[in-house]
Amino acid sequence: MTTTVAGFAGVTGNAGVKDAVPDVSLVHATGPTTSSAVFTRSLFAGPSVELSRSGDLAGLRAVVVVSGNANVATGAAGLADAGALRDWAADRAGCAPEQVLVASTGVIGVPYPMDRLRAGLAALPAAAPVDLDAVAQAIMTTDTHPKVATRQVGAARVVGIAKGVGMIEPDMATMLSFVYTDAEVPADDLDRIFRSVVARTYNAVSVDTDTSTSDTAAVLASGAAGPVDLAELEAALLEVCTALVRMIASDGEGASTLIEVRVTGARDDAQAKLVGKSVVNSPLVKTAVHGADPNWGRVAMAIGKCSTETDIRQEAVRIAFGGLETYPTLPTPDVRAQLEAYLGRDEVVVEIDLGIADGAFTVYGCDLTEGYIRINADYTT
Amino acid sequence: MTTTVAGFAGVTGNAGVKDAVPDVSLVHATGPTTSSAVFTRSLFAGPSVELSRSGDLAGLRAVVVVSGNANVATGAAGLADAGALRDWAADRAGCAPEQVLVASTGVIGVPYPMDRLRAGLAALPAAAPVDLDAVAQAIMTTDTHPKVATRQVGAARVVGIAKGVGMIEPDMATMLSFVYTDAEVPADDLDRIFRSVVARTYNAVSVDTDTSTSDTAAVLASGAAGPVDLAELEAALLEVCTALVRMIASDGEGASTLIEVRVTGARDDAQAKLVGKSVVNSPLVKTAVHGADPNWGRVAMAIGKCSTETDIRQEAVRIAFGGLETYPTLPTPDVRAQLEAYLGRDEVVVEIDLGIADGAFTVYGCDLTEGYIRINADYTT
Repeated sequence: MTTTVAGFAGVTGNAGVKDAVPDVSLVHATGPTTSSAVFTRSLFAGPSVELSRSGDLAGLRAVVVVSGNANVATGAAGLADAGALRDWAADRAGCAPEQVLVASTGVIGVPYPMDRLRAGLAALPAAAPVDLDAVAQAIMTTDTHPKVATRQVGAARVVGIAKGVGMIEPDMATMLSFVYTDAEVPADDLDRIFRSVVARTYNAVSVDTDTSTSDTAAVLASGAAGPVDLAELEAALLEVCTALVRMIASDGEGASTLIEVRVTGARDDAQAKLVGKSVVNSPLVKTAVHGADPNWGRVAMAIGKCSTETDIRQEAVRIAFGGLETYPTLPTPDVRAQLEAYLGRDEVVVEIDLGIADGAFTVYGCDLTEGYIRINADYTT
Repeated sequence: MTTTVAGFAGVTGNAGVKDAVPDVSLVHATGPTTSSAVFTRSLFAGPSVELSRSGDLAGLRAVVVVSGNANVATGAAGLADAGALRDWAADRAGCAPEQVLVASTGVIGVPYPMDRLRAGLAALPAAAPVDLDAVAQAIMTTDTHPKVATRQVGAARVVGIAKGVGMIEPDMATMLSFVYTDAEVPADDLDRIFRSVVARTYNAVSVDTDTSTSDTAAVLASGAAGPVDLAELEAALLEVCTALVRMIASDGEGASTLIEVRVTGARDDAQAKLVGKSVVNSPLVKTAVHGADPNWGRVAMAIGKCSTETDIRQEAVRIAFGGLETYPTLPTPDVRAQLEAYLGRDEVVVEIDLGIADGAFTVYGCDLTEGYIRINADYTT
């Protein structure tokens, strides 16, 4: 299967960073685009992020991604290496270096193997109509499968790809996510829509509370399919990015269960997000879900530790799993049996009503398993 | 071995909450005391905390602890049960109910088995000179060993006991910690000293970022040994509480390694604490230590995610493990071998110099292992 979007070409291959498997991808527009991009707020952001952040973010023409080496905290040499990579991509795409977004994930603190990387890049074939499935494959690190989501908006397509399974609590974007569309949309509208979508998707997911140094998300629109309804485009972008975020959470390192926490009845959306993040990030909630234990006491604990939110009163709170209430009405043995069966599913929804006002927010995460420990006690990132 | 403090009597035993093992303890002063106590800031604090918080905290005469059931989120019935327990303890101690501190940890959301508890309490023998080793044993839940620390101050003794291995990131105190001394010290001095010590000990430890609904720490002074130098008393209290905090961290659920993070060169102590907590709580740092991997890139990541601290510049930061620098001077193969050997120890020190000013703070935590997952996927707290 190949997934293409009109107006974009691309190439993937091995450039010597990893052994044998694809580790580099270049996607470039065949003409002008409108675009938008957001980046990590990490104080240890790498040269790829620094370089990309200073580029022409409203008119990006190309995205080059290296996987297996983050090129982070590599000093002045790392910045020069990122620049060389960007120059190569600009040359291939036939655009200015400022129109190239550079992204890189993998081990931190180790320089690129520049000799191998240069030779590998030189040996890549010319770009052909892009296969975004192959690109999604080439940007993976510890992901267990490529992450692609597609929606139609009028005559236009919206295709998003993402990678990321650990060091995931984006502060601005996910580790790496790129959305390509052939819709025609003014750059300022695209930017406004994309930031609104990012706030409800990439900034609402956490695998392990660890914010990456490399988070980058971008959308590029070629315009090949002509104009579309902006509200429909936003809805499609939200669906694509939500689908990708759910894939990231359920493919979280070692994860066996996607956890969705829906908080309602909050003072405002920000309070709902704070409470949702506290619950979805609690190791005790995560391990309870892993053990299929409807342990609402741990959910109560995680709400309770939001100690700045003094308008939350435990008397007004309601807690349920998949529509089955556990607090304040404690589950009967019958309901408890239903709860245990429900907690055995691949996707679990925790519902919290704070009983204050109409603020609401939904966050996404995953359970915490022996697999997470194994992956991260052995893998050097 | 028994550990006693002049002026305190006590009794421990089984009162029907757990099977067969000690699950209740009462320590009471044989005369007036001075005292101080601090409690969790959780919004889901239980009736034990609510009741204790409203008591005579400067003149506590008794401490009663139930282990195996937290009596949290049990509504009006739970408050009545806590009141009945407090009345029983006051009767035994010969003091007013307001002079009794009630504490309880274990499963959340399940009422006390009051019939069994009443019968068990009635069957306990009369209090004798307290054995604080037995009391430390009786307050354990998933702790693997009792936690006791003793120091001498002039003619007086300071004995602290604590419990807690999971749901540990105290916001005000640890899960449960009690310090007994026969020093004579005015209540307001004791309170000032104790709060200063709590800030540097219980509020500096995190096993899993989860703040308990039951955290309680108190100090009771009988005065039997007469007055002591206050600075010496503070030093002894700090040593006792630091020793207990190190025991809590190294006995963290599933833990095999104590992690101490020393942050220096910060703008102020608060910034040093924020950075230290970010590092010691990072699942990726914790699993790297578990894997004996000197993964300073993950330490850099955890510093970087403190994105509000924009005066931290990656160029000025230094990172070391046990005195072996890893950033900005990358380790040679020789140093790397030393680092790997160092990371295999039971206690690991991570040193971070932010290069800004003189702020400093040390925090304590532990590694994240398969054992944590097993304990918490199977145990209903």
